[in-house]
Amino acid sequence: MGQYVAPIRDMQFVLHEFLNVTEEFKNLPAYQEIDADIINQVLEEGAKFTQEVLFPLNHSGDREGCRFDAASKTVTTPKGFKEAYKQYVEGGWAALACDPEYGGQGLPVALNNSFYEMLNSSNQAWSMYPGLSHGAYECLKEHGTDDQKKFYLPKLATGEWTGTMCLTEAHCGTDLGLLRSKAEPQADGTYKITGSKIFISAGEHDMAENIVHLVLARLPDAPEGSKGISLFLVPKFLPNADGSIGERNPIFCGAIEEKMGIHGNATCQMNLDGAVGTLIGQPHKGLNAMFVFMNAARLGVGMQSLGLTEVAYQNALVYAKDRIQMRSLSGPKDPSKPADPIIVHPDVRRMLLTAKAYAEGARALTSYVALQIDRELNHPDEEVRKEAAGEVALLTPIVKAFITDNGWIATSEAMQVYGGHGYISEWGMEQYVRDARINMIYEGTNTVQSLDLLGRKILMDNGAKLRAFGEKI
Amino acid sequence: MGQYVAPIRDMQFVLHEFLNVTEEFKNLPAYQEIDADIINQVLEEGAKFTQEVLFPLNHSGDREGCRFDAASKTVTTPKGFKEAYKQYVEGGWAALACDPEYGGQGLPVALNNSFYEMLNSSNQAWSMYPGLSHGAYECLKEHGTDDQKKFYLPKLATGEWTGTMCLTEAHCGTDLGLLRSKAEPQADGTYKITGSKIFISAGEHDMAENIVHLVLARLPDAPEGSKGISLFLVPKFLPNADGSIGERNPIFCGAIEEKMGIHGNATCQMNLDGAVGTLIGQPHKGLNAMFVFMNAARLGVGMQSLGLTEVAYQNALVYAKDRIQMRSLSGPKDPSKPADPIIVHPDVRRMLLTAKAYAEGARALTSYVALQIDRELNHPDEEVRKEAAGEVALLTPIVKAFITDNGWIATSEAMQVYGGHGYISEWGMEQYVRDARINMIYEGTNTVQSLDLLGRKILMDNGAKLRAFGEKI
Repeated sequence: MGQYVAPIRDMQFVLHEFLNVTEEFKNLPAYQEIDADIINQVLEEGAKFTQEVLFPLNHSGDREGCRFDAASKTVTTPKGFKEAYKQYVEGGWAALACDPEYGGQGLPVALNNSFYEMLNSSNQAWSMYPGLSHGAYECLKEHGTDDQKKFYLPKLATGEWTGTMCLTEAHCGTDLGLLRSKAEPQADGTYKITGSKIFISAGEHDMAENIVHLVLARLPDAPEGSKGISLFLVPKFLPNADGSIGERNPIFCGAIEEKMGIHGNATCQMNLDGAVGTLIGQPHKGLNAMFVFMNAARLGVGMQSLGLTEVAYQNALVYAKDRIQMRSLSGPKDPSKPADPIIVHPDVRRMLLTAKAYAEGARALTSYVALQIDRELNHPDEEVRKEAAGEVALLTPIVKAFITDNGWIATSEAMQVYGGHGYISEWGMEQYVRDARINMIYEGTNTVQSLDLLGRKILMDNGAKLRAFGEKI
Repeated sequence: MGQYVAPIRDMQFVLHEFLNVTEEFKNLPAYQEIDADIINQVLEEGAKFTQEVLFPLNHSGDREGCRFDAASKTVTTPKGFKEAYKQYVEGGWAALACDPEYGGQGLPVALNNSFYEMLNSSNQAWSMYPGLSHGAYECLKEHGTDDQKKFYLPKLATGEWTGTMCLTEAHCGTDLGLLRSKAEPQADGTYKITGSKIFISAGEHDMAENIVHLVLARLPDAPEGSKGISLFLVPKFLPNADGSIGERNPIFCGAIEEKMGIHGNATCQMNLDGAVGTLIGQPHKGLNAMFVFMNAARLGVGMQSLGLTEVAYQNALVYAKDRIQMRSLSGPKDPSKPADPIIVHPDVRRMLLTAKAYAEGARALTSYVALQIDRELNHPDEEVRKEAAGEVALLTPIVKAFITDNGWIATSEAMQVYGGHGYISEWGMEQYVRDARINMIYEGTNTVQSLDLLGRKILMDNGAKLRAFGEKI
């Protein structure tokens, strides 16, 4: 079933030696007390949690998958997922980079980023449950009403409740302008939402007591196309005035998908039948608000493929040192054995080094972007915040598409190192390839990322962001 | 679940217009009566069989997989596989390119090749059962004793019995010099073979009454390494003197593998415990004899990826014409609908055309190679036979590695055309990707093919074969 050892030293190299984050944190009031010791301690504890709790559930979660019960419309996650999530919440991991105002630990995004690499190396399917919650948290924090923030942010920050993004419908994925779900205004200021969504990751599960759905739908007076879409908060259970769990809201899972990989994550069809929701942000401006979630998710998807690239590489390296087969072209390297370890062969080295380069490059790039997010959120100088935001915008589609394309190549090369054993499920390598494949598709296909990069990030400001970044390089 | 329509017109273009095979057949005594009508008729009947019988079993076979019963040591293939195989045998399909002397139909390899493309497009996992039998047939025909030919070739030609190649052991795949299975000579001229083999495709199943295993093992006086390996014929049931099924031979399946794809094909661990075998070819020259099988199998693997590329392309094309999403960059192409079919988008076209080019190129290349095999086997002029054999040897690793590398890319691109739906099992696209992945590994990884191409096919004769082929181009 392989192994995973969090690459703490490599992470420390990027954070301390390449980015010198603690120097940077001195300019960010919220992080002035974050020193190298705190960072290293979090990395070490994160390594323990992901290696010991999550990684052992990765292969079994893939084999078992999620189960849907049509009578109760409930989803059971693979054995151990629920218990691991309890540990995650109790350990304060969900709250790592959340605002102390809402119960978060207030640690930097750059540090949370390294932890997310570990989460994804150890178990991408599991990590999608809290990963999506974090996107919902960020979206509500920026666009939610005071009431929405009060009721939902503390629950999302601590991980007691999880979140989803309900965008896609059967006839529209990329082209959200075609969506049909409807929101009817009610006298009390809420909305009743009706429609059917597909491909809702973590849409229903048994790991948390409530699920906070962020749902795109149309108001009765909505203009056609993508300029007539509004965003709503639709909880699985409506909270009571005291914040406790109240009435079941009619947003139900209708089925879960059989798919190529990420079997441990429930991909749900969600049916809304007059489900009660509240508006997030402005009417008809739902896509704007949702893009906060979407951009966080895009960076998250890049992290997923970094995680898979790293763990696939680690295992292939161990195998290549252990497996003996044929002699080195330059003469026996281990004459005491009947053959040399396959790491002596040039093409095995090429495959390993490809994966290693992709992992190290992606780690440096995503950590850099995460640090820019810290500056965007916390730097006292508005100009610096603006410049950082520009870089994050420019690099987001690159993180998503470049790292996931590379992750597909790297996991496949790492699997190839195993020869026939790579194709056999028990070695664990083929799961990495299957899991990596979704990352090129969801949160906007990689072609959509290229359109975003060229159309919105480069041409829209006549190359200003690109030039600024180029000068920095 | 998609569709498959055998590309008969494209096959006819390659056979009749590009290769002009019937003209070539006039020079080959065995095929002088093969005209275009016969070829077209076989293609049409082959299309019916593969479209109507095999393709409907492809997705269900993947979902169901093979089942191993440890008590009886038997394998049950997916529902419908056995019945389809009965139709295949009764229809004479197994015998298509076999020698009439052994009950074959004596049709050209170039025609059989097109039929194999159809088999693999419709169901790679199923097609591996008869595909391996054909390799066993060719190996025995060239290296078998008169008795082996008499007892086994008619059964393999008609498909009544199937065949396997038992090479790999847990500690050796590429490096067969390390293998440990032992063959003890007996007083009656047979051998008792003991050892354990892994990754034996079609090693045990319920589709035929007997299985003819070709097994690599060492004689007691064998030199070390790859020069001490002999090849043995080890039937599941020993035939009686009248050719009927006799005693069960102790070569048993110990387990089947869970794997990434080709779930409908049983990948078996085979345990030999004093199983009775007879020597094929010369002692210690087993690899030479096995290479007849291996080369046939390598061309067969190239055909598998051609088949997958074609069927994945066909389905992606249908989807791209049907699915509407966004408008064309150059303005609406179907203003009556709320969006244009996605085939208008440049990147969708790029993906489709990549797959189409790989399919058409592979079809032309493999048909050309198949025609050279016909010349190698049947041309009256020894010089021509030798030249053809040289081309086949040169092109075999290219067919295997180039087409399977491309097939991995093409099936993945075809899946990407479907967006999120491509990742969902019911659409059938992700199975093509999973099935295509093994083709880069088995019968020698693609790196091993590159070593074969450069080391044995190009450098060994100082580039003579390469120059001759280059001049032809």
